[in-house]
Amino acid sequence: MKVKALVLEKVRELSLREIDLSLDVGPDDVKIKIDTVGVCGSDVHYYTHGRIADFIVKAPMVLGHEAAGTIVEVGAHVKTLKVGDRVCMEPGVPDLSSRASKLGLYNVDPNVVFWATPPVHGVLTPHVVHPAAFTFKLPDNVSFAEGAMVEPFAVGLQASVKAQIKPGDTAVVTGAGPIGVMTALAALASGCSRVIVSDLVDDKLAIAGRYAGVSTVNVRTGSLDQAVSAATDSWGADVVFEASGSPRAYEGIHALARPGGCLVAIGMPVEPVKLDISAFAAREIRIETVFRYANVFDRALAMIASGKVDLKPLISETFPFEQSIAAFERAAEGRPKDVKLQIRL
Amino acid sequence: MKVKALVLEKVRELSLREIDLSLDVGPDDVKIKIDTVGVCGSDVHYYTHGRIADFIVKAPMVLGHEAAGTIVEVGAHVKTLKVGDRVCMEPGVPDLSSRASKLGLYNVDPNVVFWATPPVHGVLTPHVVHPAAFTFKLPDNVSFAEGAMVEPFAVGLQASVKAQIKPGDTAVVTGAGPIGVMTALAALASGCSRVIVSDLVDDKLAIAGRYAGVSTVNVRTGSLDQAVSAATDSWGADVVFEASGSPRAYEGIHALARPGGCLVAIGMPVEPVKLDISAFAAREIRIETVFRYANVFDRALAMIASGKVDLKPLISETFPFEQSIAAFERAAEGRPKDVKLQIRL
Amino acid sequence: MKVKALVLEKVRELSLREIDLSLDVGPDDVKIKIDTVGVCGSDVHYYTHGRIADFIVKAPMVLGHEAAGTIVEVGAHVKTLKVGDRVCMEPGVPDLSSRASKLGLYNVDPNVVFWATPPVHGVLTPHVVHPAAFTFKLPDNVSFAEGAMVEPFAVGLQASVKAQIKPGDTAVVTGAGPIGVMTALAALASGCSRVIVSDLVDDKLAIAGRYAGVSTVNVRTGSLDQAVSAATDSWGADVVFEASGSPRAYEGIHALARPGGCLVAIGMPVEPVKLDISAFAAREIRIETVFRYANVFDRALAMIASGKVDLKPLISETFPFEQSIAAFERAAEGRPKDVKLQIRL
Amino acid sequence: MKVKALVLEKVRELSLREIDLSLDVGPDDVKIKIDTVGVCGSDVHYYTHGRIADFIVKAPMVLGHEAAGTIVEVGAHVKTLKVGDRVCMEPGVPDLSSRASKLGLYNVDPNVVFWATPPVHGVLTPHVVHPAAFTFKLPDNVSFAEGAMVEPFAVGLQASVKAQIKPGDTAVVTGAGPIGVMTALAALASGCSRVIVSDLVDDKLAIAGRYAGVSTVNVRTGSLDQAVSAATDSWGADVVFEASGSPRAYEGIHALARPGGCLVAIGMPVEPVKLDISAFAAREIRIETVFRYANVFDRALAMIASGKVDLKPLISETFPFEQSIAAFERAAEGRPKDVKLQIRL
Repeated sequence: MKVKALVLEKVRELSLREIDLSLDVGPDDVKIKIDTVGVCGSDVHYYTHGRIADFIVKAPMVLGHEAAGTIVEVGAHVKTLKVGDRVCMEPGVPDLSSRASKLGLYNVDPNVVFWATPPVHGVLTPHVVHPAAFTFKLPDNVSFAEGAMVEPFAVGLQASVKAQIKPGDTAVVTGAGPIGVMTALAALASGCSRVIVSDLVDDKLAIAGRYAGVSTVNVRTGSLDQAVSAATDSWGADVVFEASGSPRAYEGIHALARPGGCLVAIGMPVEPVKLDISAFAAREIRIETVFRYANVFDRALAMIASGKVDLKPLISETFPFEQSIAAFERAAEGRPKDVKLQIRL
Repeated sequence: MKVKALVLEKVRELSLREIDLSLDVGPDDVKIKIDTVGVCGSDVHYYTHGRIADFIVKAPMVLGHEAAGTIVEVGAHVKTLKVGDRVCMEPGVPDLSSRASKLGLYNVDPNVVFWATPPVHGVLTPHVVHPAAFTFKLPDNVSFAEGAMVEPFAVGLQASVKAQIKPGDTAVVTGAGPIGVMTALAALASGCSRVIVSDLVDDKLAIAGRYAGVSTVNVRTGSLDQAVSAATDSWGADVVFEASGSPRAYEGIHALARPGGCLVAIGMPVEPVKLDISAFAAREIRIETVFRYANVFDRALAMIASGKVDLKPLISETFPFEQSIAAFERAAEGRPKDVKLQIRL
Repeated sequence: MKVKALVLEKVRELSLREIDLSLDVGPDDVKIKIDTVGVCGSDVHYYTHGRIADFIVKAPMVLGHEAAGTIVEVGAHVKTLKVGDRVCMEPGVPDLSSRASKLGLYNVDPNVVFWATPPVHGVLTPHVVHPAAFTFKLPDNVSFAEGAMVEPFAVGLQASVKAQIKPGDTAVVTGAGPIGVMTALAALASGCSRVIVSDLVDDKLAIAGRYAGVSTVNVRTGSLDQAVSAATDSWGADVVFEASGSPRAYEGIHALARPGGCLVAIGMPVEPVKLDISAFAAREIRIETVFRYANVFDRALAMIASGKVDLKPLISETFPFEQSIAAFERAAEGRPKDVKLQIRL
Repeated sequence: MKVKALVLEKVRELSLREIDLSLDVGPDDVKIKIDTVGVCGSDVHYYTHGRIADFIVKAPMVLGHEAAGTIVEVGAHVKTLKVGDRVCMEPGVPDLSSRASKLGLYNVDPNVVFWATPPVHGVLTPHVVHPAAFTFKLPDNVSFAEGAMVEPFAVGLQASVKAQIKPGDTAVVTGAGPIGVMTALAALASGCSRVIVSDLVDDKLAIAGRYAGVSTVNVRTGSLDQAVSAATDSWGADVVFEASGSPRAYEGIHALARPGGCLVAIGMPVEPVKLDISAFAAREIRIETVFRYANVFDRALAMIASGKVDLKPLISETFPFEQSIAAFERAAEGRPKDVKLQIRL
């Protein structure tokens, strides 16, 4: 069926045009009228580079995977949702009968189908069909804009779950981009008593530093090592979240963690990084890795609804659907004060 | 050496008098000038009943184990603390070379020596000697009064650690006494998005209910089952903390927890309770038990200092040392609006 | 379609007769020619009592849920299995899109459909259709008879997983029935260095005691407490598996576990049991419960194939399909030397 | 007092001579008459290189830290051991009151004092004094030679504990040196159904391959990737133990682990290794590191005593104390068929 959508034609070429998409509602599906879609770094990267790792844009593809909207139709078997429900959607759909899914690790099922990951279309289009099992009702006090923030926040939350945060932990987050800030907020809401965020850019750090419990270090001018040591009586941080994806962030990163502590690798370095395994071993530091998220959308919504996490200050600007291309151009600029740009349909 | 102290002579008889206590400072010890001591339910129980389980008051015993003060002397080997440091103390001292202690489970070392547990003296006396390893420096923004609250809060924190709270969990706390309220606050600060507290007494529930994230149910007039079901879309609570110690609280308690959820038994029923094991099994609910705490005092202080937990509203009244007996009489009354009474030396 | 089956008509009345069963193969299903079916205590209980808890036999029902056979047809989407594969089947099929299933806890999905649990038919019939996701290929060196033992062994394995056994643990198993023996074997293969099994019947204990690593205590004549204390230098067992379902087994059971140890409740007492919560708490003993199993069939097969577990000695006798009723009558006798009776089709 | 000992004078120079050592027995200590000492790779490395990382031999040092013997004297407070007890010793002694020790992580206490690690003397001398808390009674059926194998086996066991092995897991061990073989045996005894061991040397693989459950791959001639894939239906190993310490072993190592699997780094590479973090993340693989061991000596002894682990075939040759230097020269040769050389006093 012909519908309007923001289409990535090829590298550096976007169109807001009609495209043919299926909108058939299966028995376990719901159909959602999209309200808000966030612009993600991966969307922008497909726009500017045409690929991420082995995922290559070979044909026109609709962008967008951070979305919230309203249910307008439900499949025959759907009992948990109804027409009119305000919802947000988990954009990856696994094969629920796979070995990984049965273990509860559906995010690492090799057959996950994920919005706006070639060749799968995204959701910058007025309507989308999605399995009810991956569609989550927004609490009344959570807006569509916040609902569309759940997806990036879920990455930080997954990292916090992997870290097995204990109440009162001290955490470090290296990298104050959107995911770094989300991770800091997730860590605080998950029990950390404080988080030290590092970056090279003051404007980014300023945004993170406005939250209670966050202190910041610009590693151009200050020492993260010293900040952690001072904050922890030389014991080290319980958890270090690496959220920059920069190979340089890994240099000496083991020294930030306490004996028996944990490093969570969230950023995705484009090439192998050097790790001093023996130095990690000397403190028996555990390294966790994160691939998207599983089973955290409901948790994210509960935390937003309860006020434990306030993501609204991270929405830097909202564009109308008609100006989607402008939104992407702005995102591609990478302004340091921009955290999240959103598009309203 | 003769020092003044609040002495429990025998059941129902307290004296504020001189008593002979050792104040020798060993090489790993510190000597603390006591500032504030909280009155705990167990202190009161020894006063009113002369025993708790197999611990029987057979000789005059100094009461008090929730304490904060200032270091006035340090042993020869002590490096982590110095004279003048404001501190609070973990009242149980294990044999650190025991099998349990080496495992990190020093609280269940059978040889723990615990203040104000017969025949060990407590700390309602101007000075006390304690191992540096169980003495914790107060952050600058944590008062002595708050420092003396760390001990009861640590019980709630231990319960939260045992529950392995995940961010966004919904918890139930049955029992709104001091430990129930502390547990609710610990659970929220540990990542729960909300806590439902139940009790039979409105005045107690009102105190808990003043905290953000806490809702309350008076089970005389309302249904805790229905409240949990409504709050969780009939899924159940992730964690149920039983903090009343009442055998009746265990009736049907399995129904409050979600499939794969957890019950943490904090209250200490005086006799065996009936548990419907098959009903617990039908949802594979895990039951954790709590005995005091281990390795959480530093975590508690970090959470208080960061503002994640505010215990000050729970300090109902402070008595001067000279009125210690009056403090105990008031505590023995069990006024519903009293959470914690403290004594200042 | 009309097929032959062992049908429980009502309490105490079995027929081997034709019955109408659907054998449609869906796209994700396989069709299996049944070779061997074990007789389970629950099958026998439906035969003798007509119900288990709230599951009541109201209409004729085919019995049997411990089964192995050969695939004779595969659905259109099935890629992991093919015609001719020798397999065993996990008898419970959850809604894979449920909240519990997505968490990896599909066994506690309230909508599980389980063979031979009213009103669902079992598999004492020549053919059965089952989802490929719950059908497991037998390694070449695992016989059909062993394949049909995987289901009861899986219960023991689930208990071992829940116990989080650490290498070198000492375990206790109370109850030497089929599940108790399976649990003891699972515990040993999961890392326990030794298991102490208790029962009231010497013939049962003799069967368990033939396995290396198992010692036995008849609690009519000996003290389990003393045996555990002697074996562990008074420290206690790391894990206690309660596999009798008898309320009496719970009396003083906390005393068997070490500080920080674990009780796993496997047996299903028909009414609530008394637990001394305060005694459990004094050692911070954790209680795990078990409901069937999840994600362990492949593990069980790997252990049988590698020779870590030998279940063959537990197959007491095999009956031809034509003598199914005799098999059930024999099972209902409860001969102490019978562990598992099987039926070959 | 003057005692005979095997002394490393400086790089490449050993003497069997008198040296002045303290043998004072403190109240919590025992004095042990040494029977057997194993020669460890680290002993040999100090002999051949004079240093390991930042630990530099600057003064004559007694070698040896894998030891078993008989208690000949006990300190005043020792209750768990008595004269005549046959024992083995855990060679690292932490500060039990440190933050790490209280957490149960005493192996990562920065103040651990470890035998034969400069400037601390080892135990190739007739008597040694050691804390009772780190001295373990040998079961009657465990020989001194086996007792002296507990220390290296403990490293493999620590790795297994860190891996959180689940029953039926498939493991890979890269590197068939002494620690690699010990790790394979520990993994099997901890619940793995099978272990695939890889190395470059057939003689080493042959030793590992004699154990049931172990298959081997010589990566000069075969593909470890293919072996793992074939053994696991392309799912991957649950746990990969890297026991070679070779940076080359890390190339592509992520591909050996299943989604949600684990890599345990046991070998200590002398310089940083390259890790493809994004590839690890794509399967959410966890990386654990190992530093010696904590709380596993008793577990190792239980496993040896029960027959779950047979270390005797790994003792390649035993030298008398008088030929200690010859033993070290032989060890320095690195004969591929030598696993463990021991010295009897």
